[in-house]
Amino acid sequence: QHHVFIQTVTLIPGDGIGPEISTAVMKIFEAAKAPIQWEERNVTAIKGPGGRWMIPPEAKESMNKNKIGLKGPLKTPIAAGHPSMNLLLRKTFDLYANVRPCVSIEGFKTPYTDVDLVTIRENTEGEYSGIEHLIVDGVVQSIKLITEEASRRIAEYAFEYARNNQRTSVTAVHKANIMRMSDGLFLRKCREVAENYKDVKFTEMYLDTVCLNMVQDPSHFDVLVMPNLYGDILSDLCAGLIGGLGVTPSGNIGANGVAIFESVHGTAPDIAGKDLANPTALLLSAVMMLRHMGLHGHAKKIETACFDTIRDEKVLTKDLGGNAKCSEFTADICRRVQDMD
Amino acid sequence: QHHVFIQTVTLIPGDGIGPEISTAVMKIFEAAKAPIQWEERNVTAIKGPGGRWMIPPEAKESMNKNKIGLKGPLKTPIAAGHPSMNLLLRKTFDLYANVRPCVSIEGFKTPYTDVDLVTIRENTEGEYSGIEHLIVDGVVQSIKLITEEASRRIAEYAFEYARNNQRTSVTAVHKANIMRMSDGLFLRKCREVAENYKDVKFTEMYLDTVCLNMVQDPSHFDVLVMPNLYGDILSDLCAGLIGGLGVTPSGNIGANGVAIFESVHGTAPDIAGKDLANPTALLLSAVMMLRHMGLHGHAKKIETACFDTIRDEKVLTKDLGGNAKCSEFTADICRRVQDMD
Ligand SMILES: CC(C)[C@H](C(=O)O)[C@@H](O)C(=O)O
Ligand SMILES: CC(C)[C@H](C(=O)O)[C@@H](O)C(=O)O
Repeated sequence: QHHVFIQTVTLIPGDGIGPEISTAVMKIFEAAKAPIQWEERNVTAIKGPGGRWMIPPEAKESMNKNKIGLKGPLKTPIAAGHPSMNLLLRKTFDLYANVRPCVSIEGFKTPYTDVDLVTIRENTEGEYSGIEHLIVDGVVQSIKLITEEASRRIAEYAFEYARNNQRTSVTAVHKANIMRMSDGLFLRKCREVAENYKDVKFTEMYLDTVCLNMVQDPSHFDVLVMPNLYGDILSDLCAGLIGGLGVTPSGNIGANGVAIFESVHGTAPDIAGKDLANPTALLLSAVMMLRHMGLHGHAKKIETACFDTIRDEKVLTKDLGGNAKCSEFTADICRRVQDMD
Repeated sequence: QHHVFIQTVTLIPGDGIGPEISTAVMKIFEAAKAPIQWEERNVTAIKGPGGRWMIPPEAKESMNKNKIGLKGPLKTPIAAGHPSMNLLLRKTFDLYANVRPCVSIEGFKTPYTDVDLVTIRENTEGEYSGIEHLIVDGVVQSIKLITEEASRRIAEYAFEYARNNQRTSVTAVHKANIMRMSDGLFLRKCREVAENYKDVKFTEMYLDTVCLNMVQDPSHFDVLVMPNLYGDILSDLCAGLIGGLGVTPSGNIGANGVAIFESVHGTAPDIAGKDLANPTALLLSAVMMLRHMGLHGHAKKIETACFDTIRDEKVLTKDLGGNAKCSEFTADICRRVQDMD
């Protein structure tokens, strides 16, 4: 037996069903002998100097050290002026690319059977700049900020992703017919970057046209790259095509290998603690994480086991159409993973 | 026989397949004895004093006189700085509400069978303000402008529409979690207006959640009201659910009864002049127009004939899955309309 290098990952279990689905993922990773060691951290926002909300230092240090995180759902804070923790995490670690592969899951019935695409969302600027003003009474403006640097960076990420994942095309999604300067800049950078990736086909499409074509025939799409808000919309739309947020993985990628993988569904307080939650989205996010870390063999094994359990339709959680407990669904995946050895 | 009051409507046939589908609509209106007289006008933009693009005066005068227009597709001008004619029309006549009823068409197969909703889009401001700046080299901003007045106006339109069209709920679609001031203002106005329409249920939803739920189960939605860009996206998405822009009607409504009804598909230059186009979207837009004018009997008759022809599946244009010519499809609808007498 050869020496295995064990990597440490920061685990943010999150709120509501977060702890249960995190436990499920840890069990499956153990069954698969994934060379991962978890460092659990809580990320409830705290008030720092000057009253600014921030990530607790222990969580921040852990992420800075480990570079890789896996995160369950976080409660949206109710206090006025309290930032979304998700936004704060993206900002704190400059996680500039949100990546969501959407692939139809065999055995899980939706109106579409042949979805196989990836949305790549610019995660740091655009409509999410947070800059807004009251001009005069009753007139408000929000600023959408687009920079050359962030546009080039996300375009490069998309083309690299396409090349490294055997994808054949990248489509830039925009409204440069309306926002000529801002979306125009984004689009120009995509075109420039495309010049360096002649092996990947490049196309451009209006956001409205993408939405229309997407619900008519999603099979034509491959890698899609777009500004922040368009990505927020399209990534959820595409998740809907394959069965919703309960089965859709997501990764937030930054520079120098820093990344946080997360399930993007809610905390489901109504079923929390009842062993009823579906861990699929977090598990598939963890599979994305393994690939990001170069652990392709373990990724494939766990992914196959998860899809086999779903296709088999015998042990499914309620939202997947069955009546198994989270722990039973998890055990079924563990068994399959072990059988592969 | 009683005296019939004949109303004049401005007809903008448009480019590409525009003239053929306009002819189809005129024939069907004649067969249905709709008390409408057409005043044809061209709207190719011209340069006015100071070099500003404008609608030709004859078209403008005609619309100002008749108040009601029916419009085919218009070519997007290629010249830099040339405005979209569609945007120019909305602006010139202050057509503040874009209304798109999306109803599943029996006999026309799509992944969804029970769509019956209406998108109501604010048509004058928001992300379409046209205000953009270069801040420093490589940094651009676009301004999204939301006003109290336009928000209240569109909210009132939506609730009036719901009440007058036997609809039970209005959903405000927003991203006020991100654009707290601008979408926040829009949302606040919707809430205020809702207070005056206790007979209509009011709900609020994030745009991303709407997109996700929409592709999973559109049957839950009724009337949706939203700022400009979100309407651009959602109205196309919803059109996709029922079969695309070839079968989706649209109306742009202004103050004092002014309105332009239009098909929102393209000019289809590849099939223009070949008697192959599908006039359904323009015809259903003309049906919306008849209802707007209070001509409910004629509207119902034409709509029923059109849906019967499609359900019958014998005489369909190519895009609807058949091989009939535009003129044959039109003749079939005319025959049904006449048979109803
Ligand atoms: C939670 C919210 C701030 C967030 C967003 O709007 O980006 C969410 O919708 C997402 O996509 O991660
Ligand atoms: C033609 C274009 C300017 C327009 C828009 O973006 O509003 C179109 O997509 C629409 O929905 O009418």
